[in-house]
Amino acid sequence: MKVGGRDTHAVWWSEEGVHYLDQRTIPAAVTVGIARSVEEVARAIEDMAVRGAPLIGVFAAYGLALAARRGDDPGAAFQRLLRTRPTAINLLRGLEAVRAAAPDPARMLEAARAHDRAEVAAAEAIGTHGVALLGRGSRVMTHCNAGWLAVQDWGTALAPIYRAARAGLAPFVYVSETRPRLQGARLTAWELGQEGIEHALIADGAAAHLIQCGQVDLVITGADRIAMNGDAANKVGTYAKALAARAHGIPFYIAAPLTTVDLGTATGADIPIEERSPDELLSAEGLDDAGEVRRVRLAPAGTRALNPAFDVTPHALITALITEVGVVPATGEGIAEAFRLAARSPQPSR
Amino acid sequence: MKVGGRDTHAVWWSEEGVHYLDQRTIPAAVTVGIARSVEEVARAIEDMAVRGAPLIGVFAAYGLALAARRGDDPGAAFQRLLRTRPTAINLLRGLEAVRAAAPDPARMLEAARAHDRAEVAAAEAIGTHGVALLGRGSRVMTHCNAGWLAVQDWGTALAPIYRAARAGLAPFVYVSETRPRLQGARLTAWELGQEGIEHALIADGAAAHLIQCGQVDLVITGADRIAMNGDAANKVGTYAKALAARAHGIPFYIAAPLTTVDLGTATGADIPIEERSPDELLSAEGLDDAGEVRRVRLAPAGTRALNPAFDVTPHALITALITEVGVVPATGEGIAEAFRLAARSPQPSR
Repeated sequence: MKVGGRDTHAVWWSEEGVHYLDQRTIPAAVTVGIARSVEEVARAIEDMAVRGAPLIGVFAAYGLALAARRGDDPGAAFQRLLRTRPTAINLLRGLEAVRAAAPDPARMLEAARAHDRAEVAAAEAIGTHGVALLGRGSRVMTHCNAGWLAVQDWGTALAPIYRAARAGLAPFVYVSETRPRLQGARLTAWELGQEGIEHALIADGAAAHLIQCGQVDLVITGADRIAMNGDAANKVGTYAKALAARAHGIPFYIAAPLTTVDLGTATGADIPIEERSPDELLSAEGLDDAGEVRRVRLAPAGTRALNPAFDVTPHALITALITEVGVVPATGEGIAEAFRLAARSPQPSR
Repeated sequence: MKVGGRDTHAVWWSEEGVHYLDQRTIPAAVTVGIARSVEEVARAIEDMAVRGAPLIGVFAAYGLALAARRGDDPGAAFQRLLRTRPTAINLLRGLEAVRAAAPDPARMLEAARAHDRAEVAAAEAIGTHGVALLGRGSRVMTHCNAGWLAVQDWGTALAPIYRAARAGLAPFVYVSETRPRLQGARLTAWELGQEGIEHALIADGAAAHLIQCGQVDLVITGADRIAMNGDAANKVGTYAKALAARAHGIPFYIAAPLTTVDLGTATGADIPIEERSPDELLSAEGLDDAGEVRRVRLAPAGTRALNPAFDVTPHALITALITEVGVVPATGEGIAEAFRLAARSPQPSR
C-alpha cells in the first residue's frame, strides 16, 4: 500500500534491525522506528507501536531471527517475545515458524521472511475471496484496524474492501472509532483516506443505531484468535456489533488468515483476554491547535477504570469466516474444511 | 446533592436570571453560569452547558418565565427554546407548563418553580421505586449521565443507586464513558465520586463483554423520550447495552419521569434523532499535563464523521420502566397504568 504515493510496508527487515511504521504517531506523523534488539522488538509490541494480530506475528518472527543473528539465547528471546501480548495467537505462530529453523541464523531469517510472505499472500487471498461478498456500493462496517497496518500490504477485514475499490465497486466504510486507543479513528480512517475509499467515522456506541436504521449492509472485522468451534476474539466492541447485526439480519464476517486459528483452544471461553492500562481509557491523545501531540485527561483524577482489550464473539453470531482458502462456516467443521483446503493448495511455505 | 460538601442544584432561578452549573467544565472546574435572556438560555442548551432531558425542561421553563419578566414575545421565546434540541420531549413539557400560566409573569415563574419541584419529586420517587430492584452489592451498568446533573437533586437512572447507597446496600456502578461527549467519564464518574459510590469507568465497546462475562447484574439508563408503545430514545449507545442485556438474560430498565413519555409519539420510529456536529467525534477535550483544558483532534484532518446523538431501544428489550408512580411494563398498557396511578396520587402540581 502507498503512503504519500510511495509503496510502504508496515514492518521490514534490514541489516540494521527490524524496521516498523510507528502506529502510535499516525495520523499526526508517519515515523519509522528500528528495533535493534529483542527487547526493543518486545517493547514496540507492548507499547503498540506495532500492532495488529498478524503483523505482530511477522514482527516477532523477525525479532527472533534478530536474536539468532546477535547470538542471544533463542529460548529466552522466544519467551520474551511471546509474553508481550496474550490474546493474538499469530504471535505464537510467527515465533514457532522461526524456531523450527533454529539454530542457523540465516535459516531463521529466511523462515521469518517466508512467514511474512505467507501472511501477505494470505491477506491478498482473503481480499480475493471476500470481495465476492460485496456488491456495488456496499456499505461495510468495520471495527478497530484490520487493514494493511495490521497485516502487511492488504489487511484482513479491509482486504475485500481494497479489492472492491480496485474493481470499481465503490465500497463505503463505516469506521468505528474504537476506544480507548482509537485505532479506527487514527489508523483505519487514515488508511482508507490514503487509498481514496469513501468512509465515515462513527462512535462505537452508534454502530447498533446505524445497523438498526438499515444503513449498513454487512459487518467485517478481523480477529486476534479463533477457537476451534469458531468463536472469535477481536478488539473489544466487536461483540456488540455482532449482536446488532444478528438483531437486524445483516451478515457479520470475521476475516482472518488460518494462522489466527488456535488448534489448542476449544472455545472462546478459553481465550485469554488482555487487560490493559486504565490510563488508555482515562485519557486521549491527539493534536492540539498548534499541531502538537498532546494527551489530555478525560475523567476526574483518581477514577478507577477497567480496560479489557478484547471480547469474544460466539460462533453462532458469525455468518462465516473469510480465510485465505475461501469463505467457510464459523464452526469446527468449517475450520477443518479450511485446513483441508490449505493442505491441498499451493502456498508460500511457512 | 453536594458539591465539595455544599448542597447544590443543577439550575436555579434568581432575580439576576437563570443560574446553571456549566456541565461543559466538569470535572475540570465547577463553574456557575447565568442566562439573562432567552437567547442565553437557548444557547446554554444548544451548547450542552445545560443537558439532561428533565433538566433542560426545567431550565427552559425558567427561560420562558424570564422572557415574560423581560416583556419579550412569549410565542417567539417558546419557539426559540423548543427548537434548541429535538429529541428530549421534557423540553416541550416544561415550556407547556409555563405557557399555561401566561401571560402573568409572576404566575409563569410560579409555574416554572412548580415544574421544577415536580421533576425533583418525580426523581426522588423513581429512586424509591427503583431501589427495590437492587440487592446488596448490586452491580449496575449505566450509560451517559442520568444523575442529579440531568435531573435536579436525584437523577433518574442514578436515583435508585443513590437511594441504595444511603440504605447501606453498597451498589457498584459500571460507567460507560459515552463517546463522543463523554458524559459518563466526565459527569457520572464525577457525581458518583462526590457521593462516595464505588464505580469503574469502561469503554462503550466493553459493555457487552462485561455483561457476557457475568460481571453485571442489571442495566439502568435514563431516556429522552418514551413512545406510547414503550420504545425509548436515549443517548446513542444505549441500544447496544439493551441487546447485550437480553442476550445474557439480565434486566434492562429505563428510569424516567412521566414527563418523558410523549403522548403524541406512537412508536420509536417516530422519535426525531438529533444529528450533532462531527467535531464532537473528531476531537476530545480534557486536561493537559499543566492542568489546562485543551481540545485535541483525534482523526486525520478532513475525516467525515456521522454523529447521531440518540438511539431507540425497542420496548421488547426493556424489562420495565421505573417511573415516579412505580415500576411498570414498557408497553402501551403499562404506560396507561402509570398515567392512571399518577392521576390518583397526590403530587406537586405541574
